Amino acid sequence: MSLIVQKYGGTSVGNPERIKNVARRVAEYKQQGHQLVVVVSAMSGVTDGLIKLAKEITPLPSEREMDMLLATGEQQTIALTAIALHTLGLSAESLTGAQAGIVTDGVHTKAKINHITPKKVHALLDAGNVVIVAGFQGETSEGQITTLGRGGSDLTAIALAAALKADLCQIYTDVDGVYTADPRIVPTARKLAEISYDEMLELAAQGAKVMQSRSVEFAKKFGVIFEVRSSLNDNPGTIVKEETKTMEGVVVRGVALDKNQAKVTLVGVPDKPGVAARIFKALADATVNIDMIVQNVSHGGGAPTTDISFTLDKPDLLKAQKVIGALKTEVGIREVISSEKIGKLSIVGVGMRSHSGVAAKMFETLAKEGVNIDMISTSEIKISVVIDLTKGEAAMRAVHAAFLG
Amino acid sequence: MSLIVQKYGGTSVGNPERIKNVARRVAEYKQQGHQLVVVVSAMSGVTDGLIKLAKEITPLPSEREMDMLLATGEQQTIALTAIALHTLGLSAESLTGAQAGIVTDGVHTKAKINHITPKKVHALLDAGNVVIVAGFQGETSEGQITTLGRGGSDLTAIALAAALKADLCQIYTDVDGVYTADPRIVPTARKLAEISYDEMLELAAQGAKVMQSRSVEFAKKFGVIFEVRSSLNDNPGTIVKEETKTMEGVVVRGVALDKNQAKVTLVGVPDKPGVAARIFKALADATVNIDMIVQNVSHGGGAPTTDISFTLDKPDLLKAQKVIGALKTEVGIREVISSEKIGKLSIVGVGMRSHSGVAAKMFETLAKEGVNIDMISTSEIKISVVIDLTKGEAAMRAVHAAFLG
Repeated sequence: MSLIVQKYGGTSVGNPERIKNVARRVAEYKQQGHQLVVVVSAMSGVTDGLIKLAKEITPLPSEREMDMLLATGEQQTIALTAIALHTLGLSAESLTGAQAGIVTDGVHTKAKINHITPKKVHALLDAGNVVIVAGFQGETSEGQITTLGRGGSDLTAIALAAALKADLCQIYTDVDGVYTADPRIVPTARKLAEISYDEMLELAAQGAKVMQSRSVEFAKKFGVIFEVRSSLNDNPGTIVKEETKTMEGVVVRGVALDKNQAKVTLVGVPDKPGVAARIFKALADATVNIDMIVQNVSHGGGAPTTDISFTLDKPDLLKAQKVIGALKTEVGIREVISSEKIGKLSIVGVGMRSHSGVAAKMFETLAKEGVNIDMISTSEIKISVVIDLTKGEAAMRAVHAAFLG
Repeated sequence: MSLIVQKYGGTSVGNPERIKNVARRVAEYKQQGHQLVVVVSAMSGVTDGLIKLAKEITPLPSEREMDMLLATGEQQTIALTAIALHTLGLSAESLTGAQAGIVTDGVHTKAKINHITPKKVHALLDAGNVVIVAGFQGETSEGQITTLGRGGSDLTAIALAAALKADLCQIYTDVDGVYTADPRIVPTARKLAEISYDEMLELAAQGAKVMQSRSVEFAKKFGVIFEVRSSLNDNPGTIVKEETKTMEGVVVRGVALDKNQAKVTLVGVPDKPGVAARIFKALADATVNIDMIVQNVSHGGGAPTTDISFTLDKPDLLKAQKVIGALKTEVGIREVISSEKIGKLSIVGVGMRSHSGVAAKMFETLAKEGVNIDMISTSEIKISVVIDLTKGEAAMRAVHAAFLG
C-alpha cells in the first residue's frame, strides 16, 4: 500500500462531469489499495469570475480580502469532488487548506508555506478516507486565510507529499508530460520518461509552461519525486526527480523557445563601478522582472563606455523604458534601443556539464539556418540565445534535430 | 457611541452595485460614530447555483460536503463587502463564521449555535474596523464547517448581537417592516412601529414570511431587541422586543393568511388511549410537519369513536396520506378526507390575554362575510381558523377591517 498525492488543475475539474471523471480515476487507485490525498484547483473560470466581481467594485481590491474571496473557488471544488467520490461508494472528506494544516506567512495573494501540520489528513487517511485538499490556499498562524499565488495548487500537492512522506506525487494536467520541445512547434518532439529537478527548472525558466518554478524548487528542496501526467488518458507521464548518473549521458534534455520576451540595449553606458547596480536597482524597484543580462567588455580609452543588454517580459517593456528614460541623463546613457521582436531559444541538459562543444554545435546549427545571434547567456546546464522572433520556430526545429533527432 | 449589528440578505447584496449601496449605508452609520458589525448572506442566486452543481453529481449529496460547498457563498460576499467599504475609505475586515467564533453543534445543514467567542470581532472593532461576518455558517468545536439552515443569516446577526451585547440589531430586508397584514392583500394594512417577540413568533408561524421563527425565538431567549427594516430606503422599520404594558392595549397586532396548508380529517377513529399518539408518531417519523390538530369530543356509546383533523404543509400531504393509509386498518379509521383548498386565517395580539370577546368578534365578522369555519385553534395570543381557500383573502380583509380599521 502506497500513499499517493494527486493534483488536478482547473480544467480537469472544470464542471460536474469532469469532476466525476476525476473521481473515477481516484477510485481506481483507491481500489488498488493505495491511500490517496487529492489536491484540486478551482473549477476553470471560477477564479476569473470572482476577480471580475471584485474589479467591478474597485480596480485595486485589498489583497487580504482577495484571498478571502478566491479561497472559495477551491473550497467549492473539494466539496464537489468529495460528493463525486461518495457516489462511487468511497469514503471521502474534504479539507480547506487551513483544515489540512497548511500554515503560511502573511503575504496575501502570494504567501509562502511555512510548515504543514497534517494531523487531520493523517487521521482521515487512517480511517480509510480519500482526503480532498483545497489547493492554492492556507492560513497564517493567526488564522488569516491566504493564497499561494500562481501555480499554488501544484505547490500544495508537492508540499503535502513532502509533509506526508508520500510514496508518489502525481500532477495531473492537460499535457501528457514534459517533452523535449513543444510538440506544436517541433513535430518530432518526444515525451521524456524522466527529467532532473534542475533541468525542469531551467526549462520552466526558459519558457516551457508545464509548471511554475517554485513548485519544482520546493520538490527539489524536499526531495519530492513527482510525475507530470495527463488527466485525459492513462499514459505514463514524466518523472521529475534528483539527477542520476544515467541522466548525464544525455547532453540535451529539452529545447525551449520563449516568445514573450523583449530586449533593451543601453548603448554607451559609463563603465564604472555602481552604474549597473544603479540601473537594475531602479528596475527592480519598479518590479520589472529582468531575465538575461549581457554586458560586453568595455571599449574606449579615457572615459570607457560599455553596452548593456537585458531581456524582460514583454508586458514590462513600457515600464522599463520609463525607468531607463528617467535615469538616462543622470547615469549618462548614450542611447536606448529596445525590441519586442525577439525569441529566446534555449537548450537544457545536465549532461552539458561533462560534454564539451555543446555551445559550438548549437551556434553552428543556427548559422547553417541563417539565424543571427543577438545575445548569448549560459549556465552550467543551459545555453540561451536571443534571436529574431520570426526565425524562432525554424531555429527551434533545427536545434532539436541537431541534438535530439 | 453604540455598537450596531446589521444584517443584509441575499437580494440586498445581489451584485457589486448593490454591495456598494450596502457599503454606503454602513459608512453613514460609521460616520455617525457607531461601531458596526455587518452580517451578510450569499449573493442571491449563488447558493442555488452551488446546489445545482452538486445535484448534477448526485441527487443526495453528503450534508457535510454541502456545508463545505455552501459556506463559500457567504464567504464571497464578506470579501466583496469589505472591499466596497475600503473604497469609501473605511477600515473593514471580513470574517468567516468560524473566524468570528461562531461555534455550532455538528448537525450539518441545520446546525444550532452552541456559543459564540467573538474575540476577533472585539479586537477588530477596538482597532476601529467595520467587521463583516459571514451569515448562515459556523464551525464545530472540532473545526468542521457547518451551516445553520433556512434563515441562518438572521440567526447569525441576532446571536452576534447577543454575544456582543450590541445596542441595536438591524435586519435589512426587502420589506419596510412588519405589517398588520400583507399589504398586497389588505390595502389598508399599516406598518407596525413595534411588536412583541411572541406576536412576531405567532405571525411567523401563521404564514407571515418576514422572518424564520428560530431567529425570533433566539432573540426572545437572549433579550435581543431588533429592527426589521428595508435596505431600499431610510424609513424606520419595526422594532421587535419584549412585551410592554402599552402593547396590551392593542388587542390584535396583525392578521395572517397561510395558503400553503392542507387539511386531513380522520373520520371515526376509535376513542381510546394511545390512538392519537400512534398516528402522530408515525407522521413525525415520516418527517411530516403537523400544524393545527383538532379533536372533537367523542360520540357513540359502546365503542366510541371521534374525528381528528389536522393541517400540514401542502407539499407533505402525499406523504401523510401514505402514512395514514398504512395505519388505516391497524388503527381502525373509518374514513380519511383531505383537502388542499383551505386557508388558515389568524389574528395575533398579546392584548387578547386581557380582552374578552375577541374570538366572538372574529367569528361574527366571518359569518357576516358568509365564510364557513372548518376548524378552530386558539392560543393565549392567537386565534386561527381554517376556511375555504377561495374566501381567504376577502375574509382577511374583513377581519383586518373589524380589528385594525
